Amino acid sequence: MALTQDTGTLINNMLNGDVRSLSRLMTLVEREPDLVPRIMKDVYPHRRPARRVGLSGPPGAGKSTTLGNLIKRGVEAGRKVGVLCIDPTSPLTGGAILGDRIRITEMFPADKVFIRSVASGDSLGGLAAATKLHALLLEAAGCDLVLIETVGLGQVGYDITDVAETFILLVVPESGDTVQILKSGIIELADIVVVNKADRDGAGEIAETLRLSFMEPRHGWSIPVIMSVAREDKGTDEIMDALKRHLFYLREDGRLASFRSPDHDFINAVSFFIKRTLNREFLATHPVFKSFHEKIMCGDMDPYSAAAIAMNTILGQEKQ
Amino acid sequence: MALTQDTGTLINNMLNGDVRSLSRLMTLVEREPDLVPRIMKDVYPHRRPARRVGLSGPPGAGKSTTLGNLIKRGVEAGRKVGVLCIDPTSPLTGGAILGDRIRITEMFPADKVFIRSVASGDSLGGLAAATKLHALLLEAAGCDLVLIETVGLGQVGYDITDVAETFILLVVPESGDTVQILKSGIIELADIVVVNKADRDGAGEIAETLRLSFMEPRHGWSIPVIMSVAREDKGTDEIMDALKRHLFYLREDGRLASFRSPDHDFINAVSFFIKRTLNREFLATHPVFKSFHEKIMCGDMDPYSAAAIAMNTILGQEKQ
Repeated sequence: MALTQDTGTLINNMLNGDVRSLSRLMTLVEREPDLVPRIMKDVYPHRRPARRVGLSGPPGAGKSTTLGNLIKRGVEAGRKVGVLCIDPTSPLTGGAILGDRIRITEMFPADKVFIRSVASGDSLGGLAAATKLHALLLEAAGCDLVLIETVGLGQVGYDITDVAETFILLVVPESGDTVQILKSGIIELADIVVVNKADRDGAGEIAETLRLSFMEPRHGWSIPVIMSVAREDKGTDEIMDALKRHLFYLREDGRLASFRSPDHDFINAVSFFIKRTLNREFLATHPVFKSFHEKIMCGDMDPYSAAAIAMNTILGQEKQ
Repeated sequence: MALTQDTGTLINNMLNGDVRSLSRLMTLVEREPDLVPRIMKDVYPHRRPARRVGLSGPPGAGKSTTLGNLIKRGVEAGRKVGVLCIDPTSPLTGGAILGDRIRITEMFPADKVFIRSVASGDSLGGLAAATKLHALLLEAAGCDLVLIETVGLGQVGYDITDVAETFILLVVPESGDTVQILKSGIIELADIVVVNKADRDGAGEIAETLRLSFMEPRHGWSIPVIMSVAREDKGTDEIMDALKRHLFYLREDGRLASFRSPDHDFINAVSFFIKRTLNREFLATHPVFKSFHEKIMCGDMDPYSAAAIAMNTILGQEKQ
């Protein structure tokens, strides 16, 4: 009961611009999933879709510096900026790589820029489910620019297109990881590619290689390859310009409306509750799954056939 | 109809040791999810749980060489070895980093060692759902040692504990990525840590740092830190020994039985079908979700409250 009151107060305070309440709510949706519907009921109607931009790249590519540059441009343009930093951190301790974050936080006024680290290592797999909720909270709190930074290669990169409308991939010359990125498929998810540390040897070559491989527009969007020197704030204007052009493209294309539609969040919400529910105990006791569970355990049925039939029963699917 | 016959023939051939049929079935479960129940129905009963070992580490840590050493020991011990290499590859093209794989493949007889690259970049998030199916196919095909290699940091690392009983993490001295790994939480998922390229400067220090941080046993298991020079096959015996000890630990602890129990596969199977089913069209047309979908779209309800109630209705949960 006290909790309900607390949540309501926190939400009111957050809507009135209180940063501590925003922070507390973010922690609540991470740690108390039971509270999520109650919180979202009051938060979601206040949410206005922000410009959501994802940023990824290998360690040492200059993600934090680039992030700082983008935040600065946002603040200068009068925007309220929310930043989510997703680290490949521990599902056990939740520890995060914080150094760069603290530096960025100290650069900007707290009422203009809100920065939050999120541990990607939840047990649910993929980008932390909490990230989607955090983005919604930032939007309800009035952020009109939400930047989402993820570290390194791997699965995190793929999921980012589910949270960010535009995905910027950062690479640097002379990095083994960059070679790995170029060989791998993550490059194909990028909407904008930035070759940072462009004053180094090999930057021009990498940019040229990338430009050649992006000659063909993808769904009508020609992926720009931008050279930057983030430490000197060089190339930031070009990135901002590319972001504007990509937003225009997304709008024309209908993708923006689709991305920002509430049924996109509905999918996320249903996944969220399914992942919370699905465990051995649930399968062993749920009215429909129970009998299949027994058959599986005594070897009368294989798990995949059982799951297919059980899901048909529960969801009323017509699939063969 | 022809497809059904084909599948049956493929399975029979696979059970009789035909490698091409195994390969074809792996492709089928990846590309034709509708066939999964039919395939698993005939495959699953033939499956005998193999020793499943995961191997991960940053690019350049010597994963492929270490993998080669482990395969060699397995073959020498008369085992049939299945290897799954999970690359951070494209969800669009499915392209993979193949060089090392081909070299390893050529080192061993095809009837003793089966190697398969799997693209991690499926749209489902997390470790490719196909990986779990591939491991089951390898087991049905008679592999009693299944090695699963993943590249780099990121989410892939976490999910590996869902497919592998024992997780070996490889690090190397003087790598920025290693520092990243040590700072990050992935290290806490490791059951065995290997400091490869141990003839390099700084190897002893890293090993010592790791040993100190692993002083406390975790759930009764003391994580060994092994120094290796994979290119010279040094340290492989120590890794094999640690694998044996960890298997013994898992058995004593009850975790092995739990991991190998069919209801572990049941969870994977249910997730597999849910992920396939869940999309906007499904939510807009399913008898239960439809009315919520309408309310969400016109702003009468937020997606998370709707999802919570809909899931309660469908699954008959008693959750608040």
